[in-house]
Amino acid sequence: MQERVTTFGYKLLAQDGDARLGEVSTPRGIVRTPAFMPVGTVGTVKALYFDQVKAAGADIVLANTYHLMLRPGAERVARLGGLHTFMRWDGPILTDSGGFQVMSLSRIREVSEEGVRFQSHIDGSRHMLTPERAVDIQCLLGADIQMQLDQCIELPAEHKEAERAMQLSLRWAERALNAFATRAGPGQALFGIVQGGIDAGLRRRSAEALVGMDFPGYAVGGLAVGEGQELMLTTLEGVLPILPAAKPRYLMGVGSPSDLILSVARGVDMFDCVLPTRNGRHGLAFTWNGKVNLRNACHAEDSAPLDPESTCPAARDYSRAYLHHLIKSGEYLGAMLLSWVNTAFYQELMAAMRSAIAEGRFASWAETTLARLDGEPKD
Amino acid sequence: MQERVTTFGYKLLAQDGDARLGEVSTPRGIVRTPAFMPVGTVGTVKALYFDQVKAAGADIVLANTYHLMLRPGAERVARLGGLHTFMRWDGPILTDSGGFQVMSLSRIREVSEEGVRFQSHIDGSRHMLTPERAVDIQCLLGADIQMQLDQCIELPAEHKEAERAMQLSLRWAERALNAFATRAGPGQALFGIVQGGIDAGLRRRSAEALVGMDFPGYAVGGLAVGEGQELMLTTLEGVLPILPAAKPRYLMGVGSPSDLILSVARGVDMFDCVLPTRNGRHGLAFTWNGKVNLRNACHAEDSAPLDPESTCPAARDYSRAYLHHLIKSGEYLGAMLLSWVNTAFYQELMAAMRSAIAEGRFASWAETTLARLDGEPKD
Repeated sequence: MQERVTTFGYKLLAQDGDARLGEVSTPRGIVRTPAFMPVGTVGTVKALYFDQVKAAGADIVLANTYHLMLRPGAERVARLGGLHTFMRWDGPILTDSGGFQVMSLSRIREVSEEGVRFQSHIDGSRHMLTPERAVDIQCLLGADIQMQLDQCIELPAEHKEAERAMQLSLRWAERALNAFATRAGPGQALFGIVQGGIDAGLRRRSAEALVGMDFPGYAVGGLAVGEGQELMLTTLEGVLPILPAAKPRYLMGVGSPSDLILSVARGVDMFDCVLPTRNGRHGLAFTWNGKVNLRNACHAEDSAPLDPESTCPAARDYSRAYLHHLIKSGEYLGAMLLSWVNTAFYQELMAAMRSAIAEGRFASWAETTLARLDGEPKD
Repeated sequence: MQERVTTFGYKLLAQDGDARLGEVSTPRGIVRTPAFMPVGTVGTVKALYFDQVKAAGADIVLANTYHLMLRPGAERVARLGGLHTFMRWDGPILTDSGGFQVMSLSRIREVSEEGVRFQSHIDGSRHMLTPERAVDIQCLLGADIQMQLDQCIELPAEHKEAERAMQLSLRWAERALNAFATRAGPGQALFGIVQGGIDAGLRRRSAEALVGMDFPGYAVGGLAVGEGQELMLTTLEGVLPILPAAKPRYLMGVGSPSDLILSVARGVDMFDCVLPTRNGRHGLAFTWNGKVNLRNACHAEDSAPLDPESTCPAARDYSRAYLHHLIKSGEYLGAMLLSWVNTAFYQELMAAMRSAIAEGRFASWAETTLARLDGEPKD
């Protein structure tokens, strides 16, 4: 039984080295951390039923403000009863602010002190996203955990540009907090986002300023954008000790299984990434023995499943030969089964990390697991 | 409990006008007729799990010899334990002979007395399909019900061309029977296919000759290829009375809900068609009140489901607004849900026909239902 709560909160249940076992509580349910949030971009975790996402062990899913504001539109979702009702997911939902995808997907965009002006990649329509409007949209969607609007920059970046974007993001954080205070419902939470590229000084100043604003949770943004795993981890090591232990820490858009393990080892609590579903659609399966590329001809007559001991029917009951055939044939079921396999694997991975932390054996578990996953090519 | 049988058979349970209620028995289970067979083209009913196909009420599915012989290959499927094991469907499977799709899909093909020589549409590889090879392939796949190789012609056709193709198909029928006698396993069945275009005389001669060969079941091929519903029904009316009442009759590649109702009224027992799944992928839903095009903007804020009384969760639990959004966004889940809706509707339709025949009220049921479905545009 999950405890009924009416406020947002975080409880640190155990610590093992820097790895943290905890619970984020929301009125819509508890999120066991470390947690991986499957990405339900436009209101669906691609090629999966939400029943499967839930059964795989996910407590929370993510949805993208940028996509939903353009289609079907935040006001429309609100008129239809909010995002939970619309997409039929009754657990907690985290939404991003839209900032990252405005930068990566939209046409012509213009950043000013006020916000970001851009054109939709779908129909060219013009939109303005401000810190206030981003909060507004996330409230219309009914997101349980919301993100401040921030400015993501591409790496590598000039120090000056990284500093300018970080400072702007801090001013937007303040405005987002003010907007949130007047508009949010009970139990909803807004997270601030640490920026600053890969500059340790900028990151520290960003983190300290945000901590001063007293957000209920903190995200680290602008990583896993090409800087490589080592620089990402170094940056995390600089930022995480500054963040208060009593608040959850979310590393945005990360990552591979090894990214997750090494980040949890440094004290991250929450993750999201399209990798499991996107790779699934492309024929790549995550397993406890590394990645398996089902496009490879070596699977064509292999009647073994991906993992006979998996709790996921897609990994346990279907032959590699059949999966190979489906992927080669471009069939829906191939994408459906492998997205399921990978979504379930990511949840198994998080559950294993939570157990290892609870039992005080995270370091040795991580070492063994990283070696086991080593079939995994770096990408 | 289904009776365990080791031989193929057909039992006529009730007749209401010309509409027939029956059971096709195979070692892999009973097929309640009239039956609609979902199409599992390359070994998957597109965008569905076989569990959903089964739960929707399907007793039997169809798979395409042409597709499977090219990829993954019949010998490969046999080495993997046969098609039932490969695709995880333990009920009966009917396979076509490949003839129809050689004509519609392959590159360069050449019909001779021996068979059809063609090039794969996938990789240009060269293949020869003869009546014997078609049986061979279907035995390798392990199909419970197999089809003779026939020559389908495009309509409209010259009388001479239709006659030549019909006569060739009869000689191939004889060769298929001989091949089947030496290769098939216990309980497997081979159906002959009535051809002859829309010429009543040719159709009659084809049917009579096939009846003389004593097949365990008969198909009517070469219809629903553009001749229109009226000509299709007229042709059926000429052919069906010639076929023995003690054998099942299968109308290949048909059709819309009204096609099915009007054909059952004339004595057809089995159908297959890609319409429910293909239309589903394109955003068209079949319901008891006609077709619903979910691309239409009128659904954008409609929180009602497609059919609150459906036994199918996809029709009952998801709003039209969400389905509209998924289809407009090109999301997998849109195709998944609507293929499910339509597959379930087709099974509901067949179940309703079986009840109506059993209770001797088929004619009035058909009249009411056709009026109800009249929202359905002709296509």
